[in-house]
Amino acid sequence: MRIVVLSGGIGGAKFLAGVRAHARTLGAEVTAVVNVGDDVRMHGLQICPDLDSVMYTLGGAHDPDRGWGRVGETWVVKEELAAYGVEPSWFGLGDKDTATHLVRTQMLNAGYPLSAVTAALCARWQPGVTLLPATDDRLETHVVVDVDDERRAIHFQEWWVRYRGDLPTHRFVFVGADNAKSAPGVLDAINAADVVLIAPSNPVVSIAPILAVGALRDAVASGPAPVVGVSPIIGTSPVRGMADKCLTAVGAEVSAAGVAGLYGSRSDGGVLDGWLVDSSDAGTEVAGVTTRAVPLWMTDEDATAAMVRHALELAGVNA
Amino acid sequence: MRIVVLSGGIGGAKFLAGVRAHARTLGAEVTAVVNVGDDVRMHGLQICPDLDSVMYTLGGAHDPDRGWGRVGETWVVKEELAAYGVEPSWFGLGDKDTATHLVRTQMLNAGYPLSAVTAALCARWQPGVTLLPATDDRLETHVVVDVDDERRAIHFQEWWVRYRGDLPTHRFVFVGADNAKSAPGVLDAINAADVVLIAPSNPVVSIAPILAVGALRDAVASGPAPVVGVSPIIGTSPVRGMADKCLTAVGAEVSAAGVAGLYGSRSDGGVLDGWLVDSSDAGTEVAGVTTRAVPLWMTDEDATAAMVRHALELAGVNA
Repeated sequence: MRIVVLSGGIGGAKFLAGVRAHARTLGAEVTAVVNVGDDVRMHGLQICPDLDSVMYTLGGAHDPDRGWGRVGETWVVKEELAAYGVEPSWFGLGDKDTATHLVRTQMLNAGYPLSAVTAALCARWQPGVTLLPATDDRLETHVVVDVDDERRAIHFQEWWVRYRGDLPTHRFVFVGADNAKSAPGVLDAINAADVVLIAPSNPVVSIAPILAVGALRDAVASGPAPVVGVSPIIGTSPVRGMADKCLTAVGAEVSAAGVAGLYGSRSDGGVLDGWLVDSSDAGTEVAGVTTRAVPLWMTDEDATAAMVRHALELAGVNA
Repeated sequence: MRIVVLSGGIGGAKFLAGVRAHARTLGAEVTAVVNVGDDVRMHGLQICPDLDSVMYTLGGAHDPDRGWGRVGETWVVKEELAAYGVEPSWFGLGDKDTATHLVRTQMLNAGYPLSAVTAALCARWQPGVTLLPATDDRLETHVVVDVDDERRAIHFQEWWVRYRGDLPTHRFVFVGADNAKSAPGVLDAINAADVVLIAPSNPVVSIAPILAVGALRDAVASGPAPVVGVSPIIGTSPVRGMADKCLTAVGAEVSAAGVAGLYGSRSDGGVLDGWLVDSSDAGTEVAGVTTRAVPLWMTDEDATAAMVRHALELAGVNA
């Protein structure tokens, strides 16, 4: 069996750990197609937060308490950069992380595409899944906001990390999406998949930038594999992160139904066949989409693997 | 009074601390013209060991025990790069240092010349002297050696750090020197100087690459200011570093006289008017050069400042 997962960073990484665990019981292959809209160049370093979150988490090197970055991280480089007075100073650039960014940036500058760089980094981390960026092309999420009474587009990281999303927010723009091609392997993986899962990642700033790659969205929407999404909202709150702020900014309801409405039914030009919602959201109805209510708290790997089993059952592909 | 010092890294930095101390008693301005032949790009970072040694030492941030780099340095980035298996792994890349290199590399990549970058970094370190690279152009010291029975040219850092100079060594090549222009301010400083001092740095790989910049050498050799050098050799040993290996490689005697012979007398196309040797080398004679024997061990800043006073006296310019 072949499973493709569309994923953002931290929440997606946690979900993928469950996918990997369940896939092992099935002897299934897993390909993660990961958001690159958060990527940013800072201090000359190309930083890929979502790819790194997945890589570190599946490599067992993430910090489970802080949620992002490496366990046992230190901050000397960041403190020194601040002492030089260079901006931005608000970004959490760890020393271990810096080495990852140095390796990546040097490979990119040497001409390797991000997908090849990711594969090279994964040679160390052995995530147990094939990790692919949605695209090797520049695709950056910018956010149209009001800062100091002025309307500006800022990079997603500035919105997320510096301002914690706490600005009047008008819309999200996926710069470069119109010309972005899916990374090598992405379309093949989707077309060969037995099921495509959408991780309970932020629909607006993690999944939408993936689906903003036209050919990728078409492959998901029109491909042979059933598509099942997992709600990132339980009740009226995001499982983690700031999906509530993002949904509100795009005028969507902060609910499992609201997110499914954004994704839409495959029968109606959207991407979903099935939608997994939390038990507390039983009764959620989405036009043209089969819903199922199961526990969605990813409290541990077993609980997450059980979610995945339910998702595969909903897709009709479980072994 | 205006003092120009030609300097390499660690030994030159120590000497410059003495120059600065003595200059303060005179109200004199000091300009350090620093070797860039050791500079190297590693892991995508532009590293300037000699400029940094001077900057950190005069900024009070150097590690006096290790001799190079920052006090309280940590090595997370280096260990992580090694864990990724990326080469070179033999270079001592500290975390604090990494931040300096990131700031420098980003400014260079943005188009600023090294001299402007150095000035920007010095805004933090306040070295109390004007720090100038010999050139903003690429000038790299390579070393022609035998490795595994094969003759190859390797970067100076590989020769120095990786092999500790312990290879059959044939010659040093200053790649780019033919086309290198002196950095902005260098010629003006030399032409306006009351005295030019040559620090007790390695003559072959620290001072020679500075003088390999044609216009710079001409300004020193033909300028109005007297030129006094300080021997880096006491007896038959270098004050620090591997000047003995370098001198032997170029066929020069490992002695104060041997080094002065390399520099040559200004009356004969060389760069020296005066040559300060250690008390134990009293009696050293160099054709066309006035020698003087004084204690040359830079045991502390006072001892070094006293050397500088002797050098200025020898130049006939002391207040």
